[in-house]
Amino acid sequence: MKKIIKNGIIVTAADTYKADIMVENEKIVLIGQDLSDSSAEIIDAKGNYVFPGGVDPHTHLEMPFGGTVSKDDFETGTIAAAHGGTTTVIDFCLTNKGKPLQDSIDQWHAKSRDKSVIDYSFHLMISEMNDSVLEQLPSVIEDEGITSFKVFMAYKNVFQADDETLFRTLEEAKRLGALVMVHAENGDVIDHLVKKALEKGQTDPIYHALTRPPEAEGEATGRAAQLTGLANSQLYVVHVSCENAVEEISKARKKGYQVIGETCPQYLVLDQSYLEKPNFEGAKYVWSPPLREKKHQDVLWNALKTGELQTLGSDQCSFDFKGQKDLGKGDFTKIPNGGPIIEDRVSLLFSEGVKKGRISLNQFVDITSTRIAKTFGIFPQKGTISVGADADLVIFDPNVERTISVETSHMAADYNPFEGIKVTGQPVSVLSRGEFVIRDKEFVGKIGSGNYLKRARFGELKQSQEELYQN
Amino acid sequence: MKKIIKNGIIVTAADTYKADIMVENEKIVLIGQDLSDSSAEIIDAKGNYVFPGGVDPHTHLEMPFGGTVSKDDFETGTIAAAHGGTTTVIDFCLTNKGKPLQDSIDQWHAKSRDKSVIDYSFHLMISEMNDSVLEQLPSVIEDEGITSFKVFMAYKNVFQADDETLFRTLEEAKRLGALVMVHAENGDVIDHLVKKALEKGQTDPIYHALTRPPEAEGEATGRAAQLTGLANSQLYVVHVSCENAVEEISKARKKGYQVIGETCPQYLVLDQSYLEKPNFEGAKYVWSPPLREKKHQDVLWNALKTGELQTLGSDQCSFDFKGQKDLGKGDFTKIPNGGPIIEDRVSLLFSEGVKKGRISLNQFVDITSTRIAKTFGIFPQKGTISVGADADLVIFDPNVERTISVETSHMAADYNPFEGIKVTGQPVSVLSRGEFVIRDKEFVGKIGSGNYLKRARFGELKQSQEELYQN
Amino acid sequence: MKKIIKNGIIVTAADTYKADIMVENEKIVLIGQDLSDSSAEIIDAKGNYVFPGGVDPHTHLEMPFGGTVSKDDFETGTIAAAHGGTTTVIDFCLTNKGKPLQDSIDQWHAKSRDKSVIDYSFHLMISEMNDSVLEQLPSVIEDEGITSFKVFMAYKNVFQADDETLFRTLEEAKRLGALVMVHAENGDVIDHLVKKALEKGQTDPIYHALTRPPEAEGEATGRAAQLTGLANSQLYVVHVSCENAVEEISKARKKGYQVIGETCPQYLVLDQSYLEKPNFEGAKYVWSPPLREKKHQDVLWNALKTGELQTLGSDQCSFDFKGQKDLGKGDFTKIPNGGPIIEDRVSLLFSEGVKKGRISLNQFVDITSTRIAKTFGIFPQKGTISVGADADLVIFDPNVERTISVETSHMAADYNPFEGIKVTGQPVSVLSRGEFVIRDKEFVGKIGSGNYLKRARFGELKQSQEELYQN
Amino acid sequence: MKKIIKNGIIVTAADTYKADIMVENEKIVLIGQDLSDSSAEIIDAKGNYVFPGGVDPHTHLEMPFGGTVSKDDFETGTIAAAHGGTTTVIDFCLTNKGKPLQDSIDQWHAKSRDKSVIDYSFHLMISEMNDSVLEQLPSVIEDEGITSFKVFMAYKNVFQADDETLFRTLEEAKRLGALVMVHAENGDVIDHLVKKALEKGQTDPIYHALTRPPEAEGEATGRAAQLTGLANSQLYVVHVSCENAVEEISKARKKGYQVIGETCPQYLVLDQSYLEKPNFEGAKYVWSPPLREKKHQDVLWNALKTGELQTLGSDQCSFDFKGQKDLGKGDFTKIPNGGPIIEDRVSLLFSEGVKKGRISLNQFVDITSTRIAKTFGIFPQKGTISVGADADLVIFDPNVERTISVETSHMAADYNPFEGIKVTGQPVSVLSRGEFVIRDKEFVGKIGSGNYLKRARFGELKQSQEELYQN
Repeated sequence: MKKIIKNGIIVTAADTYKADIMVENEKIVLIGQDLSDSSAEIIDAKGNYVFPGGVDPHTHLEMPFGGTVSKDDFETGTIAAAHGGTTTVIDFCLTNKGKPLQDSIDQWHAKSRDKSVIDYSFHLMISEMNDSVLEQLPSVIEDEGITSFKVFMAYKNVFQADDETLFRTLEEAKRLGALVMVHAENGDVIDHLVKKALEKGQTDPIYHALTRPPEAEGEATGRAAQLTGLANSQLYVVHVSCENAVEEISKARKKGYQVIGETCPQYLVLDQSYLEKPNFEGAKYVWSPPLREKKHQDVLWNALKTGELQTLGSDQCSFDFKGQKDLGKGDFTKIPNGGPIIEDRVSLLFSEGVKKGRISLNQFVDITSTRIAKTFGIFPQKGTISVGADADLVIFDPNVERTISVETSHMAADYNPFEGIKVTGQPVSVLSRGEFVIRDKEFVGKIGSGNYLKRARFGELKQSQEELYQN
Repeated sequence: MKKIIKNGIIVTAADTYKADIMVENEKIVLIGQDLSDSSAEIIDAKGNYVFPGGVDPHTHLEMPFGGTVSKDDFETGTIAAAHGGTTTVIDFCLTNKGKPLQDSIDQWHAKSRDKSVIDYSFHLMISEMNDSVLEQLPSVIEDEGITSFKVFMAYKNVFQADDETLFRTLEEAKRLGALVMVHAENGDVIDHLVKKALEKGQTDPIYHALTRPPEAEGEATGRAAQLTGLANSQLYVVHVSCENAVEEISKARKKGYQVIGETCPQYLVLDQSYLEKPNFEGAKYVWSPPLREKKHQDVLWNALKTGELQTLGSDQCSFDFKGQKDLGKGDFTKIPNGGPIIEDRVSLLFSEGVKKGRISLNQFVDITSTRIAKTFGIFPQKGTISVGADADLVIFDPNVERTISVETSHMAADYNPFEGIKVTGQPVSVLSRGEFVIRDKEFVGKIGSGNYLKRARFGELKQSQEELYQN
Repeated sequence: MKKIIKNGIIVTAADTYKADIMVENEKIVLIGQDLSDSSAEIIDAKGNYVFPGGVDPHTHLEMPFGGTVSKDDFETGTIAAAHGGTTTVIDFCLTNKGKPLQDSIDQWHAKSRDKSVIDYSFHLMISEMNDSVLEQLPSVIEDEGITSFKVFMAYKNVFQADDETLFRTLEEAKRLGALVMVHAENGDVIDHLVKKALEKGQTDPIYHALTRPPEAEGEATGRAAQLTGLANSQLYVVHVSCENAVEEISKARKKGYQVIGETCPQYLVLDQSYLEKPNFEGAKYVWSPPLREKKHQDVLWNALKTGELQTLGSDQCSFDFKGQKDLGKGDFTKIPNGGPIIEDRVSLLFSEGVKKGRISLNQFVDITSTRIAKTFGIFPQKGTISVGADADLVIFDPNVERTISVETSHMAADYNPFEGIKVTGQPVSVLSRGEFVIRDKEFVGKIGSGNYLKRARFGELKQSQEELYQN
Repeated sequence: MKKIIKNGIIVTAADTYKADIMVENEKIVLIGQDLSDSSAEIIDAKGNYVFPGGVDPHTHLEMPFGGTVSKDDFETGTIAAAHGGTTTVIDFCLTNKGKPLQDSIDQWHAKSRDKSVIDYSFHLMISEMNDSVLEQLPSVIEDEGITSFKVFMAYKNVFQADDETLFRTLEEAKRLGALVMVHAENGDVIDHLVKKALEKGQTDPIYHALTRPPEAEGEATGRAAQLTGLANSQLYVVHVSCENAVEEISKARKKGYQVIGETCPQYLVLDQSYLEKPNFEGAKYVWSPPLREKKHQDVLWNALKTGELQTLGSDQCSFDFKGQKDLGKGDFTKIPNGGPIIEDRVSLLFSEGVKKGRISLNQFVDITSTRIAKTFGIFPQKGTISVGADADLVIFDPNVERTISVETSHMAADYNPFEGIKVTGQPVSVLSRGEFVIRDKEFVGKIGSGNYLKRARFGELKQSQEELYQN
């Protein structure tokens, strides 16, 4: 059945204008003024913005970590995402050395297939680079449509890959048309600092931050960027948290290297002092990289404004405070890393960014949706409001004032790291491929209705130019 | 009468998709797939791109300079612009110290009103800042809709303003919501170097370049940028030609200063060696700032890619070689500065930028049109393809190969500085507010049909948010 | 009569060693262990350092400024300098447009000749650059031995020169073998900010600082440095006060430009908050450039350590608080700029620099003496302890702890800006050309005994290599 | 027996003056004009400079490498060093994982004790950092006086240490008062590039350079520098060859990190094109890092001038072309790395640096001797001409013109990489602790007369301040 979204202000990464949108067969089919169609359902968006659905490039749903499993799975996680205005997630598929990559991918399909309420895709972790892996990669790209590979420079003896693995992955990615993602922290340094802290009895959450200093992130970011330049490849630095890393990305881009940087709401809004909250509450704020001193926030905001950083991920990886985060009582290294953010990512950038004049409205859409879709090969199917695109739409009230709280959150964890923070703006209704997932702030979607997205190679449109001409 | 542009690939600063566009009453009213309307004229754009009309932020039409007048006036200049895919120009209105600003503006209206075939607007030169000027500025902004002021740091004893004038202009611009534009070269240094060269009998065109070194541009750019930071104001640096200036802009942006940089096709494609052409032909390549050594080109291209530079102007200011440029035989200082470029600006960026993989297709639209419209307060009326926007559209064949030549140019001057350069791509048809100006590469417009555009204040949409909500 | 200084630790810009020094006929004639000579006076320096006498490159003694005259003249000023371990001063000779340079120089000779108790020389201010000045410069250099020219970029309508004057001075200096010194602040900007402040009734001393922001110094420093590079000349930036200026100097040096930077004790030790002292006491801390926020101090110290800044001047220009500084009550622009520092320059760098581990002992000597002597063409006659050098020697107790106070100062002004600051180390005895000026902390010198020093061209030794070979 | 060196121009890191030097009991005892002593041998240095003996901080004498052993041992190597004006060498003592450090040190003593003709000391390689090594380090420092530790970031699977080892070494060095030295190239990247080159049959010497790009050195240098900042430790980067590395060192120093950089004559004078010499001659120019493109030379020279680089080592590690270098025919990885340079280090810097105006005479002494002695804890015993210092002296003719050639070299290898290069200046006579080693360009020393030097902790004088006071 057709739908017409009337009277909203349509906002894309480039445009801001008033028009109606007609949706049919999952797609946007018509944009115009005063559209009418007797067979169509009319949805009034008067006074609201209409954004393309957000794309979250960085989630860890139902992920095993440190002997536990992240709380939100593809069901609760994507419902919460939808509430927050996100209609696509790209989750990290972990792999194990020596095991077939396809096994891991199958496992991830199994976790998501019958649960996700919005469309989704996977990045693939690369933990080693050898002849066997090389043989498997073409089918990962062509059959699975997975065109981004994640390499960890941290988590020594767990995920950490050495520089040869990173460098070869960059080379292969270039050859195959994939994008390399890095978790850029120097794992060797951190591992040693952590051991020293524990030896001294420094076991509180704040030591998580103090043993992962900004220098360790800056160093690794610079290293990855320079290896990228050398390999003439392409790099995406996830969760940039500090000035040290921004500097390195900026330097690389000035040299003409293809380096893209992502930050997360927690680094823009929260700071290291949160880890010092009493009663072990600091554990709620344990991410890697850790929250930084407040001065880094201005640098991150300015980098988003000038384009030195390009995207916003949530790094969603939620754990309950009770029963999960508290595994780390008496030993901060046992605190599961991560938090529930998938729902608040879009609203926080709107409120703190657009409303406070730090970025423009169009930049906000670019950073939370369009640029991500382009970067990861799902544009223009996702990430924009244009004729022919999937009707993933967010009707957003820019003026409502509210306070973030676990009470009103839809994520599964028992706390919200942004508890008490006031924001302006909220998604009212959200459509995924033309169907309501959220309507008037209530979930009305269908469990398992999300589709798996095969993605285009790096730098290519999801629908290729050739197809565009043929259609 | 309605028109439907069918089957083109619509490209905006964010989007690339296949759809039809319906135009009515000067505006884009509908975008959709397979549009039909029996009352509409159908225009087939199959195999072509449809771009928003280019906006040229930097022209000098029928401008007095050095005892002569630039060759292209608002008639020949805007016809040529239209041929090249540009549907809006913003021309520089020169002023004289001690004379009412309105006199100059009236003079510019008189020159353009009955001639321009596309829409146009004016920037206003500020040559002094005193109580009288201060009194006049509000009406310039409100009544004339002129919201950008140009200050010259070069042309000593002619246009050059001192730092106090520049700084006060920055302060007033901030207060009033205007944008300050600077010609950033150190006029004192250049004036002295020129005198020394002439004393030594160095009179050939190449000495024009050698007496205006990149350091003089870098210095002035840095100075203007730092004064902007200090005034917490907004700056647009015209015709950035070299790495020295890019570095300063980049440094300022990193500090959070609001600094925007424009470059021109001549700096991206030509280089200093052209000034050494024999038989005084070097005079054809005399611009200020001058063409630079080839190594600067990579820096400019990368700056466009990363967003350190944001826009492309033509600095159109054409003179005949015979009778005008040759006034400078035996004394390079008497060569009128400038050249005919308005027609080739868009095509050169497409061919050298997009086709050679230096920038994306969306960036190309942003740089030649959208970002300029946003910067100068005419967006979204101009600069994009969205419902409600003016139907300024370019149907562009991306595959035709051709050679630029004065023979096929529509500009009035007797030479083309890009003579012999092969480009890929060409505008086929161009509409201004829904009417054909160019159809199948022929001019079909009407002299004087262009409208004067009052512009919004810096940072504001042409149609304000409030209006968007009310409509 | 011969003297032998026994048992001291001799410290030069390179060396630290224990030896005796024999002095005869104004010169150092012998350095060795256990020197003895029955005809010599023996001076025991056991437990003390022996430094080369300090060279203060930046003084304004008995200088007219703003309707008054700086308090210390060549008598009180040089006595105080000697107490502080300085045995040479280079004072700024001001000139007047259109007047013969020699007139000004003669006037400066007249002020100093019969008063100075230590050796001295002059820099010459350049306020215009024309044929007449050009004709006079060779005799300034050859006859007067004045090989450094000062250009002011600030003090609009008083001392300020335009960029053409600065640039031509750089060119001429290069040609003639002189060094250009700049007061680097943007006078146009400052002049305007000052007017605005006064219009708003902001008349307190703190507004002196707030109307001369670091950006204005950074901008002018960068401008001067870039003009120097362009002229392939040599530049000395006086009284660098802030990170903005250090950055520009560092950038220029990286490009291979010959740029030298001086800072002053006040910028290393005091900060902007001093200008907010109640009861108009802030006026005591009015310098141009002004004191900066505390964060700039670390940058200055690190720049001294890494060699990005090379020298320390006092900018001595003292005024009484009562009767002089208080001319500015109700109007900060009428506060005479400057303060009494000549006496504490050396001790402050020793105490805050060496004792606190920020610079090495040898660097301390280099920064307060050797590098200055080399830069201004009086080395090796001055600035070191080597055989053949003038016996300008400071016997310095590195361990005495004391508190700086006007009570114990020998400068003429009625306050000391470092009042109450505790320092470690103090000159015990000071010799100028082999004669005691200070003995056991008492002045024992002779008024008028100082000699005027003709200086070598930039980059040359006072005693040329040729002479070295011939001797 | 006493000696008096008469009429020379004494040059130190700070001073240039004409005086006589008396030597007695291995030490400099007196410096003065017209010294005389009937019991002293008189050596006339008229027309010559007298420099402190050079200190070479970077030699590999009789070192096993790639199945062969470097050609010059402590006899031929130190004789050649002396001919070249070097009177102290610090050689790298290699260690083996799991073996007692003392074993390696003993082995190095055995190699040098009866052979060296000048004084010498050792750096110690750190290949692992564990409890056993930690236990051994205090005695290495206290008993052996070895206060510098070398860590390799390259030579994968041979010398290469991981980041944890580097970081812990930095921490321990800080704690113990030692200096960490790094070979900064990314061994992982290089190892992979080498494998790829060999797979493609790229076996010629030039591929040695092409598989070790400047980016790999820049990256590792930045990494080491940032780890140093994090550990608040001290770092010495050996053999800096390129702009990429200089940039990182400069950035670190600007942040206040204690980072010192060394370059070598080969990087200042030769370039990558030498590796392309026909007939396998390119193998003579195989160093790691490799020779770079010519543009890097200007950066290195300017860095020496501004102090961003501080010292010059030879990286002496000589091999015969026939029988050693040619092991790599058909496989560049089998070419032993290194060359014979120990003899020409000082002369090349004098000729290319001082004579060509790139650095001053005093800087030359600092870079080849004084700064090195200070950095490695043997100053003021070595590295200067001051009373009490060892009489290690070089009488240097600054005007003789000659051509470097293997024919006239004293190093053992069968070629000289600087063959045919014209230099100005040459040591005439060289004294070690007061005895002639070279006299009128002939070796007159005694095999085995060199003493082993225990060195002071980092930042300390060889003769402590306390001793200075007590003496």
